[in-house]
Amino acid sequence: MAQRYVRVRTEKGQTYYGLLQLSRGVQVLDAPPWLHGQPTDLQLEPDTYQILAPCAPSKIIAVGKNYANHAAEMGTQVPKEPLLFLKPPTSVTAVGTEIHYPPQSQQVDYEGELALVIGERACDCTPEEAQEKIWGYTIANDVTARDLQKSDGQWTRAKGFNTFCPLGPWIVRELSPAARLQTFLNDNKQPVQSASINQMVFSPDYLVSYISGVMTLLPGDVVLTGTPQGVGPMQVGDRVRIEIEGIGQMENTVVVRPTPTAP
Amino acid sequence: MAQRYVRVRTEKGQTYYGLLQLSRGVQVLDAPPWLHGQPTDLQLEPDTYQILAPCAPSKIIAVGKNYANHAAEMGTQVPKEPLLFLKPPTSVTAVGTEIHYPPQSQQVDYEGELALVIGERACDCTPEEAQEKIWGYTIANDVTARDLQKSDGQWTRAKGFNTFCPLGPWIVRELSPAARLQTFLNDNKQPVQSASINQMVFSPDYLVSYISGVMTLLPGDVVLTGTPQGVGPMQVGDRVRIEIEGIGQMENTVVVRPTPTAP
Repeated sequence: MAQRYVRVRTEKGQTYYGLLQLSRGVQVLDAPPWLHGQPTDLQLEPDTYQILAPCAPSKIIAVGKNYANHAAEMGTQVPKEPLLFLKPPTSVTAVGTEIHYPPQSQQVDYEGELALVIGERACDCTPEEAQEKIWGYTIANDVTARDLQKSDGQWTRAKGFNTFCPLGPWIVRELSPAARLQTFLNDNKQPVQSASINQMVFSPDYLVSYISGVMTLLPGDVVLTGTPQGVGPMQVGDRVRIEIEGIGQMENTVVVRPTPTAP
Repeated sequence: MAQRYVRVRTEKGQTYYGLLQLSRGVQVLDAPPWLHGQPTDLQLEPDTYQILAPCAPSKIIAVGKNYANHAAEMGTQVPKEPLLFLKPPTSVTAVGTEIHYPPQSQQVDYEGELALVIGERACDCTPEEAQEKIWGYTIANDVTARDLQKSDGQWTRAKGFNTFCPLGPWIVRELSPAARLQTFLNDNKQPVQSASINQMVFSPDYLVSYISGVMTLLPGDVVLTGTPQGVGPMQVGDRVRIEIEGIGQMENTVVVRPTPTAP
């Protein structure tokens, strides 16, 4: 099994990057692995820590309509160039946490996506250079208040609520170009989304190159690569699970937004 | 004169928050002032430091069409609710620095704006509570590639290039509600933008309250409150100066984008 890179919080409230072991213990690193973190003597026993989102991005750049069949289901064309938008860092949440359904919306959709984790500063890179900047891969749910996305025009509010970017559970360094992405609702055996990531219109290398020509990407930043066909609404009480072959799976539960909200 | 809060980098590369003195010296603080930074014994002499943007926001939330006369000049209506968008932290640059004209655009506009600096965590605040979360005020230029704003639909790329958010030169804690904002190009005595900040459609308190119902605002985060009538293009070589009564003025020069770009 590929090495799994996690970020965890201990019962004493300390945050560490680490390697997840088959025993479910964690070998603690002395820095984020993309900043050359090395193993320390500290070992966390299973059930003594909480898994956090696997990185703490300074920014999250997402891409719209990057699968032709999703663009079609939204009644639009594939754009000629990647269509960029930002999600705020405060939208990030971890595997196993709750997605807060905000009172402002009547339709909150899941969007299963492959997330790229940037390993080093990337500015004006070619696609070939960009490939070296992608440190690893994780899973994201680009949660979207579909009604507000339409009414606002700009997508910032619809995609920017607290908890609207579940990310995790861990990062792997290699991924098959044909890896399958699937999204499941509750106990249904039939996925609501199922696509191979090589169906993307713009490849990860191209996306990182394109973004790096606009804004400098920094270590730990995250690029969301778009969602395939099959997006749809979540109801309060739903469990949403996104799986990507070679990474793993991430499940979150939808709840009524508490007042005041996290974080 | 009101106290001016700055962030500076010394010749040795150290970054400090501090109080700018009439002598142009800086009294160094031991933390950001909104995190209760206290004066230290360290005093920086004039001309031994470089002024940075006065805070290092984890996110920059901006508001579109928040002056009726600017909405009109763009051929649109004032929105019923604040129209939010994000600028990435990598777009921030300081007073006196260069705005990089990107090769992707043929029209790069200035947009003079009042910027709010958040002092404490704000989540689901009422406007009354929000007032307490605004620690101070500074000046921003919400630089916009107008052609890309129109062609992309989403404003992220058009407003997200490196150097597209000059911020500064310092923060003041109090501001007259009727303070005048003016933008000047080069040596022209006639401003291209001139408005009182009380002409905003949604007040600073309302904006912070509204945003805090979507995403949690953190200390040092910045809210851009929109630009008044008179936006227009900048050419390479232009100097653009934005003044707000009671704060000061911020000038930046437009240059061809170097390769690769900052930061």
